[in-house]
Amino acid sequence: MPIWYGGDYNPEQWPRAVWDEDAALMREAGVNLATVGVFSWSRLEPRDGEFDFEWLDVVLGKLHAAGVRADLATATASPPPWLTLRHPEMLPVTASGVRLSTGSRQQYCPSSPVYRRYAARLVQALADRYGSHPALEMWHINNEYGCHVSRCYCDVSAEAFRAWLRARYGTIDGLNDAWGTSFWSQRYSAFEEVFPPRDAPTFKNPAQLLDFDRFTSHELLECFRAEKAILRAATPDVPVTTNFMGLFKPANYWEWAAEMDFVSDDSYPDPADDSAYLHSAMTRDLMRSLAGGKPWVLMEQAPSAVNWRPQNAAKLPGQMRAWSYQAIAREARGIMFFQWRQSVAGAEQFHSGMLPHSGTDTRVWREVKALGAELAELSDVLPSTVAAPSVEVAIVLDWESWWALEQAARPSRLSYAAQISGWYRAFAEAGVRVRFVRAGDDLSPYRVVVAPALFLAADQDLENLDSYARGGGTLVVTFQSGIVDEKLRVRAGGYLGPLQRTLGLWIEEFTPLAGHPAAIAGTVTSTSQTWSEVVRLTGATVESEFTEGPAAGGPAITRNGTAWYVAADLAADGKAALAETLLGRLGLGLPRPAPGVERVTSGSDTYVINHNPAPYVVELDGTDLLTGKPARGLSLPRYGVAIVRAVTP
Amino acid sequence: MPIWYGGDYNPEQWPRAVWDEDAALMREAGVNLATVGVFSWSRLEPRDGEFDFEWLDVVLGKLHAAGVRADLATATASPPPWLTLRHPEMLPVTASGVRLSTGSRQQYCPSSPVYRRYAARLVQALADRYGSHPALEMWHINNEYGCHVSRCYCDVSAEAFRAWLRARYGTIDGLNDAWGTSFWSQRYSAFEEVFPPRDAPTFKNPAQLLDFDRFTSHELLECFRAEKAILRAATPDVPVTTNFMGLFKPANYWEWAAEMDFVSDDSYPDPADDSAYLHSAMTRDLMRSLAGGKPWVLMEQAPSAVNWRPQNAAKLPGQMRAWSYQAIAREARGIMFFQWRQSVAGAEQFHSGMLPHSGTDTRVWREVKALGAELAELSDVLPSTVAAPSVEVAIVLDWESWWALEQAARPSRLSYAAQISGWYRAFAEAGVRVRFVRAGDDLSPYRVVVAPALFLAADQDLENLDSYARGGGTLVVTFQSGIVDEKLRVRAGGYLGPLQRTLGLWIEEFTPLAGHPAAIAGTVTSTSQTWSEVVRLTGATVESEFTEGPAAGGPAITRNGTAWYVAADLAADGKAALAETLLGRLGLGLPRPAPGVERVTSGSDTYVINHNPAPYVVELDGTDLLTGKPARGLSLPRYGVAIVRAVTP
Amino acid sequence: MPIWYGGDYNPEQWPRAVWDEDAALMREAGVNLATVGVFSWSRLEPRDGEFDFEWLDVVLGKLHAAGVRADLATATASPPPWLTLRHPEMLPVTASGVRLSTGSRQQYCPSSPVYRRYAARLVQALADRYGSHPALEMWHINNEYGCHVSRCYCDVSAEAFRAWLRARYGTIDGLNDAWGTSFWSQRYSAFEEVFPPRDAPTFKNPAQLLDFDRFTSHELLECFRAEKAILRAATPDVPVTTNFMGLFKPANYWEWAAEMDFVSDDSYPDPADDSAYLHSAMTRDLMRSLAGGKPWVLMEQAPSAVNWRPQNAAKLPGQMRAWSYQAIAREARGIMFFQWRQSVAGAEQFHSGMLPHSGTDTRVWREVKALGAELAELSDVLPSTVAAPSVEVAIVLDWESWWALEQAARPSRLSYAAQISGWYRAFAEAGVRVRFVRAGDDLSPYRVVVAPALFLAADQDLENLDSYARGGGTLVVTFQSGIVDEKLRVRAGGYLGPLQRTLGLWIEEFTPLAGHPAAIAGTVTSTSQTWSEVVRLTGATVESEFTEGPAAGGPAITRNGTAWYVAADLAADGKAALAETLLGRLGLGLPRPAPGVERVTSGSDTYVINHNPAPYVVELDGTDLLTGKPARGLSLPRYGVAIVRAVTP
Repeated sequence: MPIWYGGDYNPEQWPRAVWDEDAALMREAGVNLATVGVFSWSRLEPRDGEFDFEWLDVVLGKLHAAGVRADLATATASPPPWLTLRHPEMLPVTASGVRLSTGSRQQYCPSSPVYRRYAARLVQALADRYGSHPALEMWHINNEYGCHVSRCYCDVSAEAFRAWLRARYGTIDGLNDAWGTSFWSQRYSAFEEVFPPRDAPTFKNPAQLLDFDRFTSHELLECFRAEKAILRAATPDVPVTTNFMGLFKPANYWEWAAEMDFVSDDSYPDPADDSAYLHSAMTRDLMRSLAGGKPWVLMEQAPSAVNWRPQNAAKLPGQMRAWSYQAIAREARGIMFFQWRQSVAGAEQFHSGMLPHSGTDTRVWREVKALGAELAELSDVLPSTVAAPSVEVAIVLDWESWWALEQAARPSRLSYAAQISGWYRAFAEAGVRVRFVRAGDDLSPYRVVVAPALFLAADQDLENLDSYARGGGTLVVTFQSGIVDEKLRVRAGGYLGPLQRTLGLWIEEFTPLAGHPAAIAGTVTSTSQTWSEVVRLTGATVESEFTEGPAAGGPAITRNGTAWYVAADLAADGKAALAETLLGRLGLGLPRPAPGVERVTSGSDTYVINHNPAPYVVELDGTDLLTGKPARGLSLPRYGVAIVRAVTP
Repeated sequence: MPIWYGGDYNPEQWPRAVWDEDAALMREAGVNLATVGVFSWSRLEPRDGEFDFEWLDVVLGKLHAAGVRADLATATASPPPWLTLRHPEMLPVTASGVRLSTGSRQQYCPSSPVYRRYAARLVQALADRYGSHPALEMWHINNEYGCHVSRCYCDVSAEAFRAWLRARYGTIDGLNDAWGTSFWSQRYSAFEEVFPPRDAPTFKNPAQLLDFDRFTSHELLECFRAEKAILRAATPDVPVTTNFMGLFKPANYWEWAAEMDFVSDDSYPDPADDSAYLHSAMTRDLMRSLAGGKPWVLMEQAPSAVNWRPQNAAKLPGQMRAWSYQAIAREARGIMFFQWRQSVAGAEQFHSGMLPHSGTDTRVWREVKALGAELAELSDVLPSTVAAPSVEVAIVLDWESWWALEQAARPSRLSYAAQISGWYRAFAEAGVRVRFVRAGDDLSPYRVVVAPALFLAADQDLENLDSYARGGGTLVVTFQSGIVDEKLRVRAGGYLGPLQRTLGLWIEEFTPLAGHPAAIAGTVTSTSQTWSEVVRLTGATVESEFTEGPAAGGPAITRNGTAWYVAADLAADGKAALAETLLGRLGLGLPRPAPGVERVTSGSDTYVINHNPAPYVVELDGTDLLTGKPARGLSLPRYGVAIVRAVTP
Repeated sequence: MPIWYGGDYNPEQWPRAVWDEDAALMREAGVNLATVGVFSWSRLEPRDGEFDFEWLDVVLGKLHAAGVRADLATATASPPPWLTLRHPEMLPVTASGVRLSTGSRQQYCPSSPVYRRYAARLVQALADRYGSHPALEMWHINNEYGCHVSRCYCDVSAEAFRAWLRARYGTIDGLNDAWGTSFWSQRYSAFEEVFPPRDAPTFKNPAQLLDFDRFTSHELLECFRAEKAILRAATPDVPVTTNFMGLFKPANYWEWAAEMDFVSDDSYPDPADDSAYLHSAMTRDLMRSLAGGKPWVLMEQAPSAVNWRPQNAAKLPGQMRAWSYQAIAREARGIMFFQWRQSVAGAEQFHSGMLPHSGTDTRVWREVKALGAELAELSDVLPSTVAAPSVEVAIVLDWESWWALEQAARPSRLSYAAQISGWYRAFAEAGVRVRFVRAGDDLSPYRVVVAPALFLAADQDLENLDSYARGGGTLVVTFQSGIVDEKLRVRAGGYLGPLQRTLGLWIEEFTPLAGHPAAIAGTVTSTSQTWSEVVRLTGATVESEFTEGPAAGGPAITRNGTAWYVAADLAADGKAALAETLLGRLGLGLPRPAPGVERVTSGSDTYVINHNPAPYVVELDGTDLLTGKPARGLSLPRYGVAIVRAVTP
């Protein structure tokens, strides 16, 4: 199986004379896959119903001749101006009622039947035309669903929202009950009275907001499904995907991943951020988790700088390669870029390309070419499927909790993503593999399961966690978990629901910290940054307690058998200490990697990546697959990588 | 006369099974008053013209049986969705033209005849149904008028604004004259050309803005008056109120208070702010002032945390009780909460309740119950009417100055509320009682009158201040007073108008301090934070002068007989020093309470409240009404309270 | 030739009784010019087509009698309410679709044919009425074009934008090519599909944005041209102007200045900003440059404070006079104010006036009067035309680069104005005169030409710079120059286009500094604040290099013959050092003026202005025109001025 290598290819930006050079340089760079047509609708269908495939025929022909496979996009991510002029009602509308204009991209209401009808016609035409094209390797549906426009508040969306609510609740009384509309006189007498959560005088109904988040993810996914159905019918054997965007709030990727033939991801960490590699490590492990054991593809990354930050740092020498190996180490089998040739016009003219503005006598081109060659060699060496790691920690990641926790009018303004990434980091830096899971998943493969701020959870999910802990699994639940059920109703009587028994405690009152972190001491001595609460024990024992703040003297970390509860918003050192404690008690304490050095074991290979300015000397036995040399003693410069294959004894 | 104790009761959120428990627990907690129906419109009138009173009959019956009186709300604060769907033109519109949506609360244009007609029908129905109900104690009209939507800029409001202007000015030339429309070519030829001050290219006409503020307060008050008229006709003996919101800019409470049978207030200081008790002290003294000598009711406070701040601290043990006694000390005769039972759904699900999510085995419940018992005992002991304090300082509080001073395009961006609260604090911490007054009031009862930043004032008001000073009263006027008349026209020729003679000076030029505070020295040595100006003396003597900044060498504080002028934006220490100086010269210097300890004398009782972490030992003679013990030597822990009744000699 | 002295005169704000006092006080103050009628439309045409000139007849008569000439405004800057009520479609609309309301000023869409038609009718009526009035000295067209509303996004503007695009590009394919619409599927099939760059999901098309900026400047200028044409036809000998606003982004003043009979400017630096005098020096040199050697008029400045900043500092004693002489020194022959008499009503009631609220016994009035007398005396002494300075540095100022560089989605967020003013300051503080030029101008008069961040440039402009350098001129090009052509297309292949040869280098990659300045060392040792890049030499030599950051070890400043390239965003000390180096190598090193002291030579006069708190002793030989004393040894207090006329030997 090859490792895919290439990028988005938008040849319509260039005169045809350039296309042959493109093909030649792709060969030179080891490109074997090109994503074609992502933003070509207005070229493919220049007028309503008039298709122009001639240029794409030529492009695909040249790619095929050059041995480059095609990841053919459905081109539905940016409707052409003629369409939105004819149907302005398909343009998206903000919560304030501003109808967004053409002249950018993603200018469509996801619920628009007009948009969906025109998109379907285009996809059908593409499938008819290219379904049996010899260059076709895979279908790339749309692009970054929801990136700029996830929520649309227009009248069409309102109607679709009502239909979705009808399907969910059956009757208006069902909705009234679920949304708690007796409060603030919001009781509806008919679905016609229900609207998206548009600008309103003050806080909106929380369940309405949550349902609108659910609806949003659903409507976007419906767009995907509609295109996929057309493609599946036409080309049952050609895999389809759409590119994810890492830890992306608007789309519940657990539901999405189930629809993918393979998972793919776009990844744009900030090169100027010294800890960005931890974020990219996390998103790569997330993709691995979503992929469910199958290889996935890093569908987009920048060869060097992006263009949309206030300051757009270039990647340093080696940085692009190091971040690419973060993906390979986590079972990606494709390293792709946005985009092949840097644009000279348009909104991304200063986004780096594999082939920079300044041509081939450039560091960026040389690095692109070198990585292409290297991955081609690795293709034959790396396993195409990988067994699950022997020791793996699971972190529960739940989109509905994310949506619910980050609403306004909560006890404290918390970032769900920060909670998740904080715990990811604690375990990743301890040197163990981390997998993201759902609370309802089979948790038996994991020695430790962490549920950070699992704010919203159904009974059966909490009972699954309970079963896990009672079966001897080490469960860590943190504050603001089990607070509401799936209707966003508070679990009164001490919160936590079924987890009260698991954890041996209930919660009397939240006592958030307004700007003054509070110290904790005990098994873990650290600080809590934003949170404390009054915990009442019914069986648990105290591992750490608050030593200051409104909960001073009360439990901060407790344990009930193998079930831990963390009532504090632990600072990074506290999370690290708890991770170390847990792993140590389980006898899983691995030698901790040096700070800034990643060590990821995948099957019989261990990837070592040095993100530090100072060189790092490898301390593992085995052979480095990249150099063929013995690994131990290899000095890795900044961004250096070794893939240490254990010597079979 | 009882001290009212209870809270908002929204039973429609709960199944009927809960209602009996509610009644039983209310008895346990000493509840004697419940505010019912504030947000019940969509339940009381589920469809246009179809009323459903059955559930409320049951609720009121249960309350009556439990001995709980009803503060029955008119339920007009949140129109039902069926109404706004039928009449979208009654939804409010922002200055940018955004029509606010349903799904929250207060979604009505105050000027809407549709809203007013439907509201009147509901109020009439309630009056008919419950006017003679045995549980009915008082009517609670609407709720927190203007809290989220004070100004509405819709076309209906525009028409109402024009009608209000016609009534005020008679002719369009009258308006042109008052608004100074010759400037910037704004001259109107007909009222039809006038609009609310919607988004415009740059600064709007200041008099238009001011009149729109006046109109806004008036329109909201008209809503109140319309409901009151219906209730008064039906139940002439049942008192009515609406709940104020402390120092609330959009509604001129001097005008409102005149319409109340008794004043009531909602109060939500931030428990995490160590100086919040000073703010709540001030709003309680404001309510006392608005109540005009009659008892008032603290209609809402939180039992513990609120839910609408970014971080919502819980009240510390004792804090709720201490803040409640701040009200009792200032002649409140009701301590009420929002809300009785903490919601499990809806926008306030994380706002604390008297009965918390976690039930009765909680600190919050125990404190609620204890205070109920304590107040019940005090009911018989406290006087029902209270004589005015022997020594009282008056602070002029003027809504029109507030509106005018805080417009854009002023010499310096100033907070009127900060000016008011700064002077309140200076005198309150000196241990004297403070009353808020209007400039035109009878000022003879007060030994000191402070007029901070009385930016807008009519001649007769300034003459009233002049008479007071010339009659020997100690008058303190601060910078940016007497700058414009009631048409917002500058008082040219040195500003201050009639006060020039009172103060013995005129002002040559404003020289605001842009970011650099300036020192002052003399009778008061301190700094001026944002302001200096060039004062020209015509009789006054200099008490302090600017020693740096653009007015260096010129007067900062002057005195002309008993009339003081403060040309500086005194820092807190400067205000305190001036207060001490004034009281000292008048022989009113009381022993200063310890910082953080309140000492409020009401009739023969002196309330001592310790807001400090450290204990405070009472140094007054008399008997503590709460413990029955001799007061002197009592040690008050943090948030401890004593009510020291002087021993009649 | 007189030096004009006076200000905006808006007598319609006042009763007629005041007008005689105005005339008398104008005489007292030495006023010889009054700008009349700027905001009088609603008074001149109180109803559609009904003109009322009677009051203006009286005003002009009184001015004439008092010997005050009239700068008669066309009054089109603020349409009357009756007009916008009748034609709401002429009100401007924001990018979010908010139609701005009446009640402020400048409430018109510049492209509106309705506005233009009504404006033309008014201007014609004014020309008919006053074209031969004896007081008429000049016409003042509109006021501060674009100050509040430059861009309008309404449907009328959309239509006008399309017409402008049709004229520019001929065919829709021409537009598609210029805008690069193949990217992001933005290809248009007809002009009807094109809109102004209204709110959109994400980044808009850069060329569309640039063209909308061009269109905006053009539409405003068309408004000016239409009025000018009417006036020119009626009064061919009366000069016309409109007041500029310094370094003002929305209007390309190079194009505008060509339409002026004389240039005039409004100038409002912040008196509280100690370095504001450098900014006003720069804008005065800009006006001199735009005026092309002819005298210009400082049309508006504040006598003391303005009213639109958060804190509005008053000018200190002497500060107004010092800033006035900054203009005289740079060949202004008019010092005017906004406004004559301080308003008591309206949006500018707290903007200072020549005649303050507090009257004539004021510092402001005395300073106004004294300056009037002084300028009257100088009128006979100063030359009416001035030769170009012997040594002058040119800075290329280019509005299209400004617009293009400050778009979103650029390598780094840069302020073009900060780049320009930084280089201005470096040379101005070195004591040489600075002139602003266009890249395509005849550059031969200048010994040094600096092109800072000339982001967008046509080939011929870059070739002009090349010719200049190859002819021996010292050319300094800074980073982010020559990046795109006039279609906003990137100059691929190393950027810079024809300048690659001039500078002897090309650029491999941008490596912007994200928050970490980088040191440079060599001929100039300093830091680069936001920028570094990888420079590849093809002939240039390194003068300074980056010693840290992503470009460490690479060139930061290079030289190729007399052509310098600055790859760094030099801190102020670095710019100063480079300026000194360049002037020194050219033998132009003048004795550097003391910091905070301006020294400007105009013909045989040298203006010395001391902006420092401490006195400054003049060290030049000659006679001070203001005191008649020998200049050397004169001690200038803060804001003191001397005009040293060299003694002819």
